[in-house]
Amino acid sequence: MNIAVLGTGTVGATIASKLDSLGHTVKMGSRTANNEKAQAWASQAGRRASHGTFADAAAHGELVFNCTSGAGAVQAIQSAGAANLAGKIVIDLANPLDFSKGMPPACMHRGDDSLAEQIQRAVPDARVVKTLNTINAGVMVDPARVPGDHDVFLSGNDAAAKTEVERILRDWFGWKRVTDLGDLTAARGMELYVVFWVRLWGASGTADFNIRVVK
Amino acid sequence: MNIAVLGTGTVGATIASKLDSLGHTVKMGSRTANNEKAQAWASQAGRRASHGTFADAAAHGELVFNCTSGAGAVQAIQSAGAANLAGKIVIDLANPLDFSKGMPPACMHRGDDSLAEQIQRAVPDARVVKTLNTINAGVMVDPARVPGDHDVFLSGNDAAAKTEVERILRDWFGWKRVTDLGDLTAARGMELYVVFWVRLWGASGTADFNIRVVK
Repeated sequence: MNIAVLGTGTVGATIASKLDSLGHTVKMGSRTANNEKAQAWASQAGRRASHGTFADAAAHGELVFNCTSGAGAVQAIQSAGAANLAGKIVIDLANPLDFSKGMPPACMHRGDDSLAEQIQRAVPDARVVKTLNTINAGVMVDPARVPGDHDVFLSGNDAAAKTEVERILRDWFGWKRVTDLGDLTAARGMELYVVFWVRLWGASGTADFNIRVVK
Repeated sequence: MNIAVLGTGTVGATIASKLDSLGHTVKMGSRTANNEKAQAWASQAGRRASHGTFADAAAHGELVFNCTSGAGAVQAIQSAGAANLAGKIVIDLANPLDFSKGMPPACMHRGDDSLAEQIQRAVPDARVVKTLNTINAGVMVDPARVPGDHDVFLSGNDAAAKTEVERILRDWFGWKRVTDLGDLTAARGMELYVVFWVRLWGASGTADFNIRVVK
């Protein structure tokens, strides 16, 4: 499948490399056409891999992963272009963290809105699904790095898109427990959770951890 | 032990009843001396149980549980009185949830501050420990309502106070896994988590659930 990965950071590279290894044709998008990190990623990835602007990548992808920083995400999506994203599933992994006062970060909102909803409003014809933002990059594509059962969550307004994303999480990335938290307003809590995650990380001594819901 | 429970809602009544059942002498505090819910609680609790103003309760307690609403917590603590709380452990269970736009609630902050820190600033000579705010009232005092292993968290600036609170969580309430997340700034994430908790609740179909950190 032709897939766009927006963002050149650790999350973008991890997702892009996993998709590339699965045989997909991945184009990594960034603000500029000649981003060094995107070039470096594409040159070490498989022959099918390429890179370009956010718009180049969005035009290429039948499926889009948004792995940009929280601060740059809405602008990245706007640069990608509403027409290039119309009708497509946009899997949003970005976290709206505010590092302006250093570590630990705050969130850019207090749960009265979410980055995922902002993105959905920016490209109303796209099918935004929030997921994977609650775990570290390595665990996203290899949940077995954390032993035993643990959970990944998703939310979105398009039921068919969520079904497809759940299939991707299970079949491509190996997730066994996928919990649908409802419509895209659930992304508010998913994004706020990450401020808590940072403190769990500090107490855990490793970023290879996750939570399991027990009931 | 003489214990103050500030707040007359579900959390306050649940904590107060558990402490009463353990043989402690509990005074439930509220804004007024003749609060109906506090009267009703005291009349059905053991002979030792009583009620009064926030200040009455704080003066009585060697240990203080803050179970007020997020919106009323700082004012309740101020009413309780800095002198009545000086040197005492104040276990803060309150969640700064904003229901002004209905359900699901937002948080009153975005992780750049916390209610627990506001309380600590209001009564600097008290020893504030944040804990138990990440689970439903019934589970707080009876973690076995949720099967298997699951976690309760605490944070605070006073190491000895945290050690004492951990002992209370284990010996009085039956918690087996208690994780210290660090100083009181960790309360920011613990409080933001509750916005996520509300969506987990919706997906779980029961409030008798919790999370387990897996690593």
